Amino acid sequence: MSRFLTPHIAALPSSVPFTGPETIERRKGQAFRARLGANESGFGAPPAALAALRAAADEVWMYGDPENYDLKQAIALKHGCGSEHIAIGSGVDGLLGLTCRLTLAPGDKVVTSLGAYPTFGFHVANAGAEMIRVPYLGDHEDPEALLAAAKRHGAKLLYLANPDNPMGSWHKAAVIEALVKALPADTLLILDEAYGDLAPEEAIPEIAADHPQVIRFRSFSKAYGLAGARVGYALAAPELARAFDKIRDHFGMSRLSLAAATAALGDQSWLGQLRADLSRAKARMAQIATENGLTALASATNFVAVDCGGDGAFSRRILAGCEARGLFIRMPGVAPLDRCIRISLGPEAAMDVVAEVLPQALAEARA
Amino acid sequence: MSRFLTPHIAALPSSVPFTGPETIERRKGQAFRARLGANESGFGAPPAALAALRAAADEVWMYGDPENYDLKQAIALKHGCGSEHIAIGSGVDGLLGLTCRLTLAPGDKVVTSLGAYPTFGFHVANAGAEMIRVPYLGDHEDPEALLAAAKRHGAKLLYLANPDNPMGSWHKAAVIEALVKALPADTLLILDEAYGDLAPEEAIPEIAADHPQVIRFRSFSKAYGLAGARVGYALAAPELARAFDKIRDHFGMSRLSLAAATAALGDQSWLGQLRADLSRAKARMAQIATENGLTALASATNFVAVDCGGDGAFSRRILAGCEARGLFIRMPGVAPLDRCIRISLGPEAAMDVVAEVLPQALAEARA
Repeated sequence: MSRFLTPHIAALPSSVPFTGPETIERRKGQAFRARLGANESGFGAPPAALAALRAAADEVWMYGDPENYDLKQAIALKHGCGSEHIAIGSGVDGLLGLTCRLTLAPGDKVVTSLGAYPTFGFHVANAGAEMIRVPYLGDHEDPEALLAAAKRHGAKLLYLANPDNPMGSWHKAAVIEALVKALPADTLLILDEAYGDLAPEEAIPEIAADHPQVIRFRSFSKAYGLAGARVGYALAAPELARAFDKIRDHFGMSRLSLAAATAALGDQSWLGQLRADLSRAKARMAQIATENGLTALASATNFVAVDCGGDGAFSRRILAGCEARGLFIRMPGVAPLDRCIRISLGPEAAMDVVAEVLPQALAEARA
Repeated sequence: MSRFLTPHIAALPSSVPFTGPETIERRKGQAFRARLGANESGFGAPPAALAALRAAADEVWMYGDPENYDLKQAIALKHGCGSEHIAIGSGVDGLLGLTCRLTLAPGDKVVTSLGAYPTFGFHVANAGAEMIRVPYLGDHEDPEALLAAAKRHGAKLLYLANPDNPMGSWHKAAVIEALVKALPADTLLILDEAYGDLAPEEAIPEIAADHPQVIRFRSFSKAYGLAGARVGYALAAPELARAFDKIRDHFGMSRLSLAAATAALGDQSWLGQLRADLSRAKARMAQIATENGLTALASATNFVAVDCGGDGAFSRRILAGCEARGLFIRMPGVAPLDRCIRISLGPEAAMDVVAEVLPQALAEARA
């Protein structure tokens, strides 16, 4: 341990929130046949975004615009708000980290769901705050219980993903709107809408752009197939959106990534086409689950949680069996969610691998 | 001001360390003819890096490898060290921020040079630490005075750039090695070698890879022409290099950027060719300076500080005159360094713009 670390940092673990598929591939000495573990989009990025990436390669010697002006304009147009409501970051992950640094002091309390996004927990721990975890209600995050916990603990932040990861479930807009209305005055709602562009319209709440107690996150990693470019954004009241300028790495965004994300928003037909592709893949996944005696849960995202009807150990055996056969998938980390495995939706060839491998892994796990 | 900011954050300014050239272009409604203000490399990136960027565009739907394995291997090979000595980040800027978060608690002291890299000061302020600034000795950072200040104030960090930015000057290896030897036991030396790949060999100190009190930074933004890709790395003792895993955004690196940086290191002829280009541009810049009655300072970097012989106000007028004529350059922020303007070296067409515009801007500034 380096003696230069602060006591708080020294006490933090060095563990990685997720093992990357490349790490597993290096360990096995073999590439995965299908990569369906990280909710990446095998359907790829809008052609305009790929063209922008390639065109911007010639400009890679230049830093990106530190104001992210063009991308902010495109996002403002999409959401019908002013650019003063927008903060850009290297994916929702990066923005969650900045948000924790902006708002959390050691000892502050944060409320989330037990089994929700681990990377958020990583950032909360880094900020020295205390995490309170509320069980899911069935396959859904439980807004009422989250709210009650926030009140009981005087939470500074309340994190909710809608649609939810890892379960794929969603709440209707009215539920989220009621949660917003009932927030304690000292609680900021982090509404993670990383899958928002894939959700049915009924899942997207109306929240005033100036609402001082809500910050929403959107990602280019899921619907826009740009996970490897690292772009996400926050929507918040201007006084909060502007605060990111106090600590963000102003020249931190890749010039190519900015160009790609901006171009992606210009493709008006992309999301419709992608939804059709996902809908087909979702039906296929449900069929595969049924054929194997499993239950595919309803999903508003680009992945499906498949209830395997056993405990976490059973799911882990299935995961290991899939991995051994070249299929990369993941599973929720805690009970009772860990009766499920989580499979990202992909093009037909990837779903074929699921259809082939899952029965074998299941048979092995049951033996 | 959002009420959710911590008191420390609320007290921080929202100011940007540097105004980007795009901001100026939007204000003027006109693009720059030559972009020589940010020490970007108009000589571009190695062809292999550009090819890797374009090839990786097809993989942009996948997150990058969170272990950054391939790039670490390539860096380890370059430096003849093990990969456990390496931490990757989104440029030296991003790594400086992480380093400050790892090591600084509120009230800690940090020593740097008066007029050295402002972004480092930005990160130190964000961490709540106190910055002590030591004057340059002529055109050089002053290692002895920095050391004395570190001892006097019990500094946790001592920052030194070699070669230096904004002056372009450099210390010989022996000077840096003596500084390392004399470090107080509780001081960590941040040796910023962003321009190290461009420096004469005599400027690169021998420091044991395991030295617990030194962390070196290298960049792909300068010699490798990949500023827009955001890749840098730290070299440190394993216990410090590993500590970045405690707080870094594990999936934060762009997959394309990782591929480009890895490929760049594979191009064995690139640095030699670039040095020849820079040498030509440097000679041209010296000639332009002489023709205008100015003095180009010796430089071990891809930019030249030109002593204009006046005060900061005079330099600022020259800068404004250049800007009005389509030439983007910058200048040091404080006296007495601000008697200089700082001009990045670029291809002949860019240097032609300097030759054309500088005399006009000078005449205007003198009038």
